[in-house]
Amino acid sequence: MHVLKDLIQLDRKADAPVYLQITNAIIHHIRRGTLRRGLKLPGSREMAEHLGIHRKTMLAAYDELMAQGWIEMIPRKGTFVVRDLPDIKPKKIKPGEEIGQYPGKTFFHIDEKKVIPFPVGQFRDPNLLAINDGFPDTRLAPTELFLREFRTVARSRGFKKYYQYGTPKGPEYLRETLAPFLSDTRGLPITASNVMITKGAQMGIYLTTQLLIKPGDAVIVGEPSYFAATLTFRQAGATILRVPVDDQGIDVDAIETLCKKKKVKLIYVIPHHHHPTTVTLTPERRIRLLDLAARYRFAIIEDDYDYDFHYASNPILPMASLDQHGNVIYIGTLSKTLAPSVRVGFIIAPENFIDAVAHLRRSMDWQGDSMMEAAIAALYHNGVMGRHIKKVVKLYHERRDHFAALLKDQLHDRITFKVPDGGMSIWGTFHDVDLKKMSAHAAKKGLLIGDGSLYNTHTKNYNALRLGFASLQLKEQDRAVEILRESM
Amino acid sequence: MHVLKDLIQLDRKADAPVYLQITNAIIHHIRRGTLRRGLKLPGSREMAEHLGIHRKTMLAAYDELMAQGWIEMIPRKGTFVVRDLPDIKPKKIKPGEEIGQYPGKTFFHIDEKKVIPFPVGQFRDPNLLAINDGFPDTRLAPTELFLREFRTVARSRGFKKYYQYGTPKGPEYLRETLAPFLSDTRGLPITASNVMITKGAQMGIYLTTQLLIKPGDAVIVGEPSYFAATLTFRQAGATILRVPVDDQGIDVDAIETLCKKKKVKLIYVIPHHHHPTTVTLTPERRIRLLDLAARYRFAIIEDDYDYDFHYASNPILPMASLDQHGNVIYIGTLSKTLAPSVRVGFIIAPENFIDAVAHLRRSMDWQGDSMMEAAIAALYHNGVMGRHIKKVVKLYHERRDHFAALLKDQLHDRITFKVPDGGMSIWGTFHDVDLKKMSAHAAKKGLLIGDGSLYNTHTKNYNALRLGFASLQLKEQDRAVEILRESM
Repeated sequence: MHVLKDLIQLDRKADAPVYLQITNAIIHHIRRGTLRRGLKLPGSREMAEHLGIHRKTMLAAYDELMAQGWIEMIPRKGTFVVRDLPDIKPKKIKPGEEIGQYPGKTFFHIDEKKVIPFPVGQFRDPNLLAINDGFPDTRLAPTELFLREFRTVARSRGFKKYYQYGTPKGPEYLRETLAPFLSDTRGLPITASNVMITKGAQMGIYLTTQLLIKPGDAVIVGEPSYFAATLTFRQAGATILRVPVDDQGIDVDAIETLCKKKKVKLIYVIPHHHHPTTVTLTPERRIRLLDLAARYRFAIIEDDYDYDFHYASNPILPMASLDQHGNVIYIGTLSKTLAPSVRVGFIIAPENFIDAVAHLRRSMDWQGDSMMEAAIAALYHNGVMGRHIKKVVKLYHERRDHFAALLKDQLHDRITFKVPDGGMSIWGTFHDVDLKKMSAHAAKKGLLIGDGSLYNTHTKNYNALRLGFASLQLKEQDRAVEILRESM
Repeated sequence: MHVLKDLIQLDRKADAPVYLQITNAIIHHIRRGTLRRGLKLPGSREMAEHLGIHRKTMLAAYDELMAQGWIEMIPRKGTFVVRDLPDIKPKKIKPGEEIGQYPGKTFFHIDEKKVIPFPVGQFRDPNLLAINDGFPDTRLAPTELFLREFRTVARSRGFKKYYQYGTPKGPEYLRETLAPFLSDTRGLPITASNVMITKGAQMGIYLTTQLLIKPGDAVIVGEPSYFAATLTFRQAGATILRVPVDDQGIDVDAIETLCKKKKVKLIYVIPHHHHPTTVTLTPERRIRLLDLAARYRFAIIEDDYDYDFHYASNPILPMASLDQHGNVIYIGTLSKTLAPSVRVGFIIAPENFIDAVAHLRRSMDWQGDSMMEAAIAALYHNGVMGRHIKKVVKLYHERRDHFAALLKDQLHDRITFKVPDGGMSIWGTFHDVDLKKMSAHAAKKGLLIGDGSLYNTHTKNYNALRLGFASLQLKEQDRAVEILRESM
């Protein structure tokens, strides 16, 4: 009996048609070397009889193999495995070994230094109570209105262009809607040519870093500062310099001292609500920092991730609105306004920067999701976003006050904090509390909360947490802080 | 009269409330230096009268300025611009100069070498006739079914988790749907742990390059090869080595010769339908290439951008399905199946590679659009995608045949081509035709078509075009080829 007959197992319940099962089995054994090159194969009639199938099915399999170049038919001689396949030593298959197992590891070298482990956020079950880092309450997202716009975009003739490839800067429609919106709300005298749409603020930080930073370049960040930005700079090979952050924001004197000593390429600031400490950079420091930037010609990334959420007064205009020379790269996001999973953000910068960064972005992911982006543009255009922001700011304001009172009443001297002027979290420093233990205890009682390690730097352990209040209703806050108290 | 009174212009038709207009005007002039530090400001009553507004409005503006830290109230003395603002020299405003103009250029240095201009695709008006590079017909996209799934995802309680932050690998649901789908259709014996969801194939190429390539590393590509991949390798500092592509695909002998001479880090292949020439790599070359990879320990990027679209026989199983050692990074996309603007693709690789690349992706854009990704998963899960692919493959097959016949009948000896086994375009080499002129002439007659420069390399002018047939209905093909003939 021909070897081939033994090698084919048909599964009549499988989705794949029988002729394809035969085809794949034969390919498998040719590549394994079980069927050697030049081997003569049994005739289709013989194989069909043996397998109990119609001869046409077997012929279809042979046709398929021939079309794919695995076997050849030599007139008056028969059907053969093609001769010009390279030598393959048959691999012995041990009993029980699964055939065609996928390799568990790469066989080539991966430079481990390139892999800086980012804290890959654990999955947050929306049904569990959680004090997060300061995320919005997605239950408030204007889902139905968004769906309506999305449907309109997807169906409309005029929007069909968003199905095809677009530009890496984002759809004109969104850029032209966003420019006046940002101009009106943030005093940015920009046009669409200064706008690039990104997938969230993180892409803005990444692109700017890739464009500006060569290995060894000096980047200044706060002590403490937003961890993901710091990792992004390190990944690009930057030398990280840290300057203190006090209750007026990042220390500009310290920045000046550093600039006098060495060439600084980039400074990363979060003036509106510093991450993690939530402090707002004072107007005088803002102006001095811009002045230093012009003098020492460094770039400033102004990360304004939650501009819209300010309660003490109106939001303070971004530094980018004061920039007269072109030092500031202004980065924002809509993720905090709609939902974190909606990956739409923007870079605002002088036109030459936007053009350069668009080329970089092309190689990264070509372009954004134009349909999604067009739907979001519509939400801004028709005023839904404006109204939504107004509504949630009022609600978050109330939630901040309630939460601050709770922390004070319930946790007393175990925590110190300053009520922040904006944002979605309170920066609380704990006293005589082991945060790792507290986090573990709380989890057992049904409350997810971090252990603060995210905010520590190489030199400092803050024993502090960003306590997100925005995503919790008042009653949920009561329960969460109660568990927190019991977990200390 | 106080200087301040002259500086404020109210626009009663503006959206911004009056008190905010005053606030912003005063900030503007403080930062310009027009209002010097320590300057005493007029009382609110006086200002209100001068401006013709209610005194409460003026008080609101002063409160706002105080809250933002621009002015201070000294009891029994009055209201002042804060003294501890740094010295600012007032900038003379020339007549006619627009106040607050946004800088036209950056004031810091951008390394021009980092900016490799990608051909930023011109906008394709969907209402104009176009012979594109080989894109799908978006008119056939199952828009309504997609919208239904998207709505379900957005509304469903169970899916609320997709509103919050997720993982950089993509939603579990999509990875677990895609793994068996790819296993069934492409013989990839993988699990979800081998899958990472990306924003299209380009992100897969970019991430792999960033992870593996250090400046100076050697990367082999075909002559010709897909331009965007080559640019991505160059951007990472790779040394590009080119080997010929003939009618059996990339020349594996030439690859072996190179490997003997120098350390090769990565080889980029498109075995199923080579870009741009559409040729399919033969089985024997595939096996030899895998053998070389194991011997010389290089990585292979297998770009399989249009696997599903094969007409000659069933699609040929990817090289990744034969990979026994872990040399192949398999990259695919769903953009060609649904619509180019739907940015969902995937990387299939050994688990250690997926983990490493997920960290890199974190810094790039944090994660994908989980809601969109979940909706697409549902389309695979409920069989819509399978049926859609079957339907369009039949249609594209017909369109390929019609288009090939047209080219032969209408353009005769001005073009040579081989009918491709799959894909969405025909690679046509033109004779005695100036493609630049042809492209310009065609545009005047209402047909958009490239001039072929995209496919040329440093050393070769192919005078050829990828002629996309898939997005044109038969009558549109007739008209397009007619215009083409008239434009030569």
